[in-house]
Parts: sequence; C-alpha cells; structure tokens
Amino acid sequence: MSKPAPLSKRLAAEGMGTAFLLMAVIGSGIMGEKLAAGNTAIALLANSIATGCALAVLILIFAPVSGAHFNPAVTLCMALQKKIAKRDALAYIAVQIASAIIGVASAHLMFGEPLLFASEKIRTGGGQWWSEFIATFGLLMVIWGCVKQNLPAVPLAVAAYITAAYWFTASTSFANPAVTIARGFSNTFAGIRPEDVLPFILAQVAGALAATMLLRWLIKPS
Amino acid sequence: MSKPAPLSKRLAAEGMGTAFLLMAVIGSGIMGEKLAAGNTAIALLANSIATGCALAVLILIFAPVSGAHFNPAVTLCMALQKKIAKRDALAYIAVQIASAIIGVASAHLMFGEPLLFASEKIRTGGGQWWSEFIATFGLLMVIWGCVKQNLPAVPLAVAAYITAAYWFTASTSFANPAVTIARGFSNTFAGIRPEDVLPFILAQVAGALAATMLLRWLIKPS
Amino acid sequence: MSKPAPLSKRLAAEGMGTAFLLMAVIGSGIMGEKLAAGNTAIALLANSIATGCALAVLILIFAPVSGAHFNPAVTLCMALQKKIAKRDALAYIAVQIASAIIGVASAHLMFGEPLLFASEKIRTGGGQWWSEFIATFGLLMVIWGCVKQNLPAVPLAVAAYITAAYWFTASTSFANPAVTIARGFSNTFAGIRPEDVLPFILAQVAGALAATMLLRWLIKPS
Amino acid sequence: MSKPAPLSKRLAAEGMGTAFLLMAVIGSGIMGEKLAAGNTAIALLANSIATGCALAVLILIFAPVSGAHFNPAVTLCMALQKKIAKRDALAYIAVQIASAIIGVASAHLMFGEPLLFASEKIRTGGGQWWSEFIATFGLLMVIWGCVKQNLPAVPLAVAAYITAAYWFTASTSFANPAVTIARGFSNTFAGIRPEDVLPFILAQVAGALAATMLLRWLIKPS
Repeated sequence: MSKPAPLSKRLAAEGMGTAFLLMAVIGSGIMGEKLAAGNTAIALLANSIATGCALAVLILIFAPVSGAHFNPAVTLCMALQKKIAKRDALAYIAVQIASAIIGVASAHLMFGEPLLFASEKIRTGGGQWWSEFIATFGLLMVIWGCVKQNLPAVPLAVAAYITAAYWFTASTSFANPAVTIARGFSNTFAGIRPEDVLPFILAQVAGALAATMLLRWLIKPS
Repeated sequence: MSKPAPLSKRLAAEGMGTAFLLMAVIGSGIMGEKLAAGNTAIALLANSIATGCALAVLILIFAPVSGAHFNPAVTLCMALQKKIAKRDALAYIAVQIASAIIGVASAHLMFGEPLLFASEKIRTGGGQWWSEFIATFGLLMVIWGCVKQNLPAVPLAVAAYITAAYWFTASTSFANPAVTIARGFSNTFAGIRPEDVLPFILAQVAGALAATMLLRWLIKPS
Repeated sequence: MSKPAPLSKRLAAEGMGTAFLLMAVIGSGIMGEKLAAGNTAIALLANSIATGCALAVLILIFAPVSGAHFNPAVTLCMALQKKIAKRDALAYIAVQIASAIIGVASAHLMFGEPLLFASEKIRTGGGQWWSEFIATFGLLMVIWGCVKQNLPAVPLAVAAYITAAYWFTASTSFANPAVTIARGFSNTFAGIRPEDVLPFILAQVAGALAATMLLRWLIKPS
Repeated sequence: MSKPAPLSKRLAAEGMGTAFLLMAVIGSGIMGEKLAAGNTAIALLANSIATGCALAVLILIFAPVSGAHFNPAVTLCMALQKKIAKRDALAYIAVQIASAIIGVASAHLMFGEPLLFASEKIRTGGGQWWSEFIATFGLLMVIWGCVKQNLPAVPLAVAAYITAAYWFTASTSFANPAVTIARGFSNTFAGIRPEDVLPFILAQVAGALAATMLLRWLIKPS
C-alpha cells in the first residue's frame, strides 16, 4: 500500500483476486458436496479449508498491488478512513462485483454446470442476519487490528478468521457483499436465493461500520 | 505488552477476545454437530480447527493491547510472576468471565437457541480431571516457553497447542476457567453440566501453577 | 537462487523433491481411499492436506539449492524469463519426469502395489481441461506474485494454493506435467488414464504461459 | 543450540517434549477412533493433525533449550555429525525412551485405559519396513535441510512433514525409535505389537543414516 500502483493494475489485481476467491468458494463447495456422500460437515470442512487457503495466498500476492480488498465492505471502510480515494473506491467495488460473478461462471464451467443460474438456497431470518453482522464485524476487527498495528500477518489472519467463521456463524460467514451477490447466481452448495441477498448485505455493512468505529477508539495510539 | 494501553482499552480487548473465542467454541460446536450426521469425530475436527484458527487471530490482534490472556488461569499466573498488577488482574478476570457468557449468548442467538440454558453434558471423573490438569499445564508450558524466550510465535503456538489438545485429552481441553463457566450455560456440543464446572477449574489452576513453577526453573537464564 | 549450486546438486535436489512429492500425492491417495470407507471427500481431504504439507516442506528445503521447481511448466516459464539457462532447464525437466516415476514406484512399494501399472481412471472433457488451465494459471500467478515481489512465503503460498486447488478445480489440480505423466503409471486414487495425459499437459502449459504474460505486465515495477 | 543449557535442563526439556509428543500421538489416536464411528480415515486425519500441531509447538519451545530431538534417531545423527557430545547423546536417548513410556501411561490415564499394556496391532512386512525407511529418511532430510541452511522454520517444517508422512507411508510414519518402543505398550489405535518393534527401529536407523550421508554431500557449502 505504500507505493501505489497505477489504477489499472490495482483494478486488475482486485479483479483477479476476487475471481479466484469466488472460484475457491463455489468450486470447493460443489466438489465437497459431490464427494461427501451426504455428510454436509465434511463438505463444509473442505469448503472452509479451501477458502481459507485461497484467501491467504491471494491476499499475500495482491496486497502489495491493490491492498487486496476483494470486498466492497472493506473498500467502503478503507474509504471512510481515507485509506483510498472515493473515486478509486467506486471503481474497486464495481470490479469486485463483476469479477466475483466471472469467478462463479468459471467455477461452473469447470464442473459442467450452467454458467450462471439463480440459487434456490434459502438463507433468511434473524439468526442469519445476526451471523452476518458478527461475521463482518469480526472480519473488519481482524483487518484493522492488523493494519493499525502494522502486523505483517494480514494474509494468515484473514484466512484463519474466515476458516473459523465458516463454522461459528449460522450463515457460514459470507461477510462480503460482492461474494453475496455472486453466490446468488449459483444454485449449488454455496448459493443464496437472490431475494435473501439484500438483508445479508445490510447486515454486513452494519457490522463492518461498527467494527471500524470500535477499533478506531480501541487501537488508535492512546 | 511493552507499552501498556490504558486499563479501559485493555479490558475492552480482553472482553472482545474472550467473547469471540466463546462464539468460536460454541458456534462451531453447534454447527459441527448439526451437520456431521452423527459422526462426532467430524464435529470435533471442525470444532478444533475453528477454535484454533480463531484463537490465533484473536491473540495476534489483541496481544499488543492487553496481552490477550482471555483466560483467568493465565492472568493468575501472570500476576504471580509480576507481569500484571494484582488489581488489574482481578478486573481482567471479571471481564473474561462476563464476556465469555456474552459470547455464549451471541452464539446461541445466531443458531436460534435459548440465550443461556444450563448444560446437561456430564464431564466428570478422574480421567477428565487429569485431562484438564495436563491440558492447562501444557497451555502454560507453551505460553511461558514462548514468553520467556521472546519467541514471536505465541499466537500460532497457542492455537496449534489447543487444536492438538482438543484431541489428545479426554476432556477436549477446556483449559480455561472462564470458558468452563460459560460453557456451563450451553446445552450444546461444547457444554458442561454446572455441577462439573468446579472440579474442572481446580484441575486447571493446579496445572497452570505446576507449569509456571517448572518453567520458571527450566527456562530461567541459567 | 542467488548463489547457484553446481548442476549436479541442483538436479539431485529437483530429483529428491519431485520423488517425495509424488510419494505424497500417490501414497496419501492410496491410504485415504483405503481407510475412507467409500467417502471420497475424506480421502481427498487427506490427500490435499498431505500434498500441501509435503510441498511446503520440500520447497522450503530445496529452494535454496535448485529453486525447487519440481514441475516442467514452472521450469519452462523460468527459462522464458531467463531465470535459468536453457540447457539446464532441459536437464531439470528430464530429471523431474524420471524422479516423478521413481516416486510413484516407491509409493507402490510401500503399499504393496505393482511398481508401475497403467491407470484406468478417466479424466477428460472440457471441464477438466478448463480446470487444468485455471489450476496451472493460478500456480504460476502465485509463484510470480511471490518471486517478483521478493515475498519469502513461497513455500507456504504454493502449498496453500495447491491444497485449495485440489478442491476448487474439477480435475483436482494436477497443474504439473511431470506429475501428470507419473500419475499415468498408477491405477490408484490419484491416477489418470495414459490417453488423457496429453490434453492435460497442453492445458497446463497454456495456463502457465498465460499467467506468466499477465503477471509480467501486472507486477513489473511500474 | 548456540548457548547450551546445563545438561539437567536439556534432559528435562527432552523429557517433557517427548512425553507430550506421546500423549498427543496416543491420546488423539484413542479419541479419534472412539468418535469416528468406524471411519478410520477420520481417526487418522485427527491423529495426524493433532500430532503435527503438538510437534510444531514442542519443537518451538524446547529447541532453544535442548535442540528438541525427542527422537533417538535424530540424536544419533547429531552425535555422528558432532553436534552433540557422545555422553550427552546417550543420556538424551535414555530420557527419550523413558519419557515416551511415561507419556503413553499419562494418555492411558486420561482415557481410563490400563497404564501400560502390550499392543496386539500387527505391523510387519516389506512394505512397512520400506515405509519406515522412507519416513525416517525424509525426516532427517527435512531436519538437515533446515539446520544446514539456517532456516528458522524447523518447527513448522518437521510438523508439516510428519502430518504428510502419516498419510503417504503405509506404516503411518513412526520414524522414531523411542516412539516405536513406547507405542508397543499401548493396545490402542496407535499401538504396535512388541515383536514388530525391532525391525521398525532398524529401518528407521538405516533411513536416518542414509539421509544424513546424502544431505552431507548435497547441502555442504560447495
């Protein structure tokens, strides 16, 4: 983040990272469900480990280029804290959403599914929304905790957090509006019904903002 | 630990860390059991991996603020070794216990369970107590081993130790009095009957003290 | 890579690394399938974790000697970018293929299988080839991302990437021509029918070259 | 290893480390088998992850004190390479064997098994012995690879190697004479029939010596 690359390269990094992230989420979900013979816990174990591993690598290699947000909620909070210009933030978010959808289509292509098809997986209700609030609160807590204290372990920290959060939240921690939108286009293990997307995003943004406020007080050099 | 934050921030860090730790323990236990179709080993695998991942992240981000104890047995030993003032230690312990219970309630809210409800899970007998003695002995052995030798790997070391100890002790390694009390309020996978809590805590404190003594001799610069 | 060892030692390092890599891939596949009681997801989970762990260690210890390619696609791209002399690259590739086959035979010896026997496992079709293109694209993306930015985490990054890619590609990510050829000689969990080998290799080389081009633009100091 | 502690402390470190290692191996084996409902792959997955995690931590904290051998084959090779005095090496080996047996007894105590009881688990034949040769060859390859190149990642490297080797060798990689002897006293998941112990140890020592020779040539500054 110290020596900014030109916007074109930063957007390319956000795009490749987000597309690969979605391939990891969707692809490992399909593979897990296909092989697990009905034992959903094994499918989720594979899904959570694959997502965590992919996330660690993608953040590691793209953070020096673009900051490796891959997530509109992160970009929003970074913009609020003046870590990224507003105009750049909008471009980031547009690229994240588009690339997430491309990633879903690429995963479907690998597994012989239709490129994009609306999910029928119901994910709604107070428990789910509280889960997404907590999941995204925790994600931003981890990011700010590392960023503000200059801890170099961001890639591992975010990856470990998400692997855990897949399990400890009832919603399996989407924690990312671009990911949520894109998963609406996949009627597979990791999908979400289009009509359930908006409340998820609202809960995510609320959680992200709350964590940003709280950490601003907690870790600002006192 | 070198530049102490004000007590209010240190307590906030202990509180957030302990609450998230309990969400990870309880939430991933519920999710694991729900999905594992009766295969308890898969549930415990998910539970141990999620707890380890969460612990690594929480220690990483909160250690610079509060030391990231999240555990009255750790705070007690730190106080005995003059690493924390006695009055602060009492405040730490009170916040740890309260936050642990809040974490349990938050996890229950995500999964649609009653906020708090007494566990009926029996955990008693000599094998269990010996397990808790060993689990907490090992935990403090790891912490002092890292702290006294200035090894920066504390977050990973503690996380890896706990993931292992979930499996190699017959009690699944509570190793933490605040966690033990809070798990008494959860009639789920990770719960413990209230009447079984006290012997667990006694074994934990004994193990923690024994390790602190032994490591004091073993690793004191000779 | 900074202080080059004599070619004989570099080839020995490539040979030992590739042989152990194949033992890990084939051996853990056999063990996983043998124990998993028909639940292929558990077998693949073991296979992916064992391969990732082995890869991390092998790259760690042999990278200072030979660069730890273990993969003709990597050696090819390194040669194109002038990181290795052409004549040395040919020797690397020959040793990688021979050692991969030796590794397969050694694994078979451990598990009481015939030393080498043609696989009957069908792996063909557009989804599989797209998978191998993506898998190898991603592998080179990770390698160049680390190498060009001087990130010391190559061993962990490659290992985490491959563990994830086993799950998120439909082909379980061979991503390595030497590995693909050698797996043709194993009629076990990780095998591939000899007639399916060539298209896999073509897709792998295409993916590797595409990533090398793209990263050359993306991460070249701007 | 640079500033040697007095022998008493080094032996205490070897003893505690080896005892905890055996608790991890035996305890997680019992727990895994008990919970896995007959799916041995899940039991071995838990066993391999728990052993790897424990090993990483134990090497991390005890390496600065004693070198963290926990393994007579390692101590033997270190003595041959003049890294430890012969008399000290004999003391190390005696303590390793005694502590390994104590660790087994402690694990049995946790799980309500007889303190020590002869195993009836058959582990014999050429495939098993070749497995132990390879397993210990690989272990020493990893250790020397790290030690000779001053790589600080020894704890993670050994842990990752052993986690992988549990899966890719037919014997589940004992790779340690003290561990092998001690596992002869446990008629549980990780046990080995007493009459099968000696050939395992011979294969282990042969593998360790072969790797030491080969790495001496390969990685000696050329």
